[in-house]
Amino acid sequence: MMTLSEFLIPSSEYAARRGPEDVIVLSSRARLARNLCDSSFPAWAKKPERLQILKRISDAVVSLAPMKSCLLESMDNLSNNDKLALMERHLISREHTARGVGSGLAINKEENISVMINEEDHLRMQAILPGFQIRKVWERIDHLDSELEKKIPYAFHPEYGYLTACPTNLGTGIRVSAMLHLPGLALTDQISQIVGAVSKLGLAVRGIYGEGTDALGNLFQASNQMTLGETEEDIVIRLEKVIRQVVKNEENARQTLLEEKDQITLLNHIGRAWGILSNCYTIETRETLNLLSFIRLGIDLGMFPKGKRSDLEELFLITQRGHLQLAAKENMDAPQRDRARAEILRKKILKLKAPQKVKLKPLES
Amino acid sequence: MMTLSEFLIPSSEYAARRGPEDVIVLSSRARLARNLCDSSFPAWAKKPERLQILKRISDAVVSLAPMKSCLLESMDNLSNNDKLALMERHLISREHTARGVGSGLAINKEENISVMINEEDHLRMQAILPGFQIRKVWERIDHLDSELEKKIPYAFHPEYGYLTACPTNLGTGIRVSAMLHLPGLALTDQISQIVGAVSKLGLAVRGIYGEGTDALGNLFQASNQMTLGETEEDIVIRLEKVIRQVVKNEENARQTLLEEKDQITLLNHIGRAWGILSNCYTIETRETLNLLSFIRLGIDLGMFPKGKRSDLEELFLITQRGHLQLAAKENMDAPQRDRARAEILRKKILKLKAPQKVKLKPLES
Repeated sequence: MMTLSEFLIPSSEYAARRGPEDVIVLSSRARLARNLCDSSFPAWAKKPERLQILKRISDAVVSLAPMKSCLLESMDNLSNNDKLALMERHLISREHTARGVGSGLAINKEENISVMINEEDHLRMQAILPGFQIRKVWERIDHLDSELEKKIPYAFHPEYGYLTACPTNLGTGIRVSAMLHLPGLALTDQISQIVGAVSKLGLAVRGIYGEGTDALGNLFQASNQMTLGETEEDIVIRLEKVIRQVVKNEENARQTLLEEKDQITLLNHIGRAWGILSNCYTIETRETLNLLSFIRLGIDLGMFPKGKRSDLEELFLITQRGHLQLAAKENMDAPQRDRARAEILRKKILKLKAPQKVKLKPLES
Repeated sequence: MMTLSEFLIPSSEYAARRGPEDVIVLSSRARLARNLCDSSFPAWAKKPERLQILKRISDAVVSLAPMKSCLLESMDNLSNNDKLALMERHLISREHTARGVGSGLAINKEENISVMINEEDHLRMQAILPGFQIRKVWERIDHLDSELEKKIPYAFHPEYGYLTACPTNLGTGIRVSAMLHLPGLALTDQISQIVGAVSKLGLAVRGIYGEGTDALGNLFQASNQMTLGETEEDIVIRLEKVIRQVVKNEENARQTLLEEKDQITLLNHIGRAWGILSNCYTIETRETLNLLSFIRLGIDLGMFPKGKRSDLEELFLITQRGHLQLAAKENMDAPQRDRARAEILRKKILKLKAPQKVKLKPLES
């Protein structure tokens, strides 16, 4: 049998994937929550029923065209590092890493469609693509959903829509989101203002790691809040519109920082990040995320002539716990991981050479 | 007339001065507090009396052999930057920088004897030398005091000894101290233990900048606490003994850090300090002191083959506010200073090249 490490796209290749407007919108995701009409929700179902549900859904999922040669695994067959690596690639939720017997997962070969079975709902299916592709991920998951609905009976109420274990997902069961890199807004202290404005539009902007404005790595997830009383089409259109606005704000913030006398704020942050990462001998995830954010920004702005975005994305991936331990083929304690992480970062970041001031280009409007 | 900038030893020369055991004991100081028997203490004396006292003491001081070709200034003739620079060279107290008309100062050419007139007491005289020279600074200031006593009538009480404005200085009026650089004890979390042990011996160890264990730059002052009921000789002997012990503890801590697997803790601190200092574009004094402490340690341990201790000491001096502004020949606001400081540090620290692991040498016992 194929192991997960053998199945997964190598990190360098995974990190090299590009998408439209992926400088600020790192990735787009759509997920649907669905349940069988004739079975208990996972939290209520006993083990034999959960196993039966898993079998039924698995059979249906693997028979679909988009899931050809997919990886299908029962969660108890995965090691902790496997689960962590899947979470780090945003293919499964943190909750699903805690599941064992009776829960499962299917991932297609391209690693852009994943189906969690017996997570909170019987079915959580997700499409993820690099860059700004909200509509495309929605269409993909909508198609998968329609195909699947032909094979298994969904719990659907004519008035409430799709039924879910938690009422916050009731109705369309859809969550569409984008991962945004917003260092410009963070450096110009505009994050809380943006978060506030967006939430008034019924959308949410949250730190992906950490809470609120303390978001690690200046990474934010913009997503729809409600699943009831609105069509999927409306949700997609509104999210696209809001993200486009946030991207514009981030671009303006970056331009402002570039235009600032001698680019001192930028150079100071990016230079220090480069200096620390290329000279540290032990470093935690938290600090890594925050410093790599500035390196990513430096690469975006052309301050590192030798810097490729894909190198950065790879570092971002392989310095996380699961990937680190899968690569080392052993579990490490926290200090060991912090040293291994520093080792990787020091060598790779040093190659970028220190950041340089850049000439100003007028912003395209 | 000669300006202070013309009088002062150039910073590079000043920083190149060496003394015995100056790796850990950066400098030694002795100061005496004395008052005239026939005049009010400075805080009680009105301006005409203060001016009269200043004249009387000045005349006596400049006539002494060790003060030949000294600089003699009334405090109101010095600019704020002059005063700051003098404080940064530990030649006058922070309190004395606030004095104007009626207060004065005399400094000998070698900048190792300074006399403050009408500070808290009529006379505060100090000898300072690089390295571990407690006895020598005491002898120097004792000699100056004896010579001066022949010329001006001191306030002396047969039972209490020399009278001072504040009772904490009553008796001998002496404070002997050494400036210690203790990064090893700080990194191995032994500072509070040392501070506690030393204070039980009637001596004090305090952060030179900042308070307690939050001492900036890992710089500490060890000094006698009491001036009453003990001879100067006893005080000097005890302080020498205690400092010798602290130095031994610091040496052991450094050896422990060197022996630790791969010297990771050391390399991590020193490498990061080097990385930040050689890549920052704005930096505050606080952070500068803390990072330069690690560079100094790295030079001490041989981790910077190109690093000279005098370069470090010069950086330490010229990045402080007064020296920075005297060199720039203008006042700067805080952000301007932070940028000017970063400019100097970046270029000079880069020349050291990144720190390297060192081979272990057994500690001489």
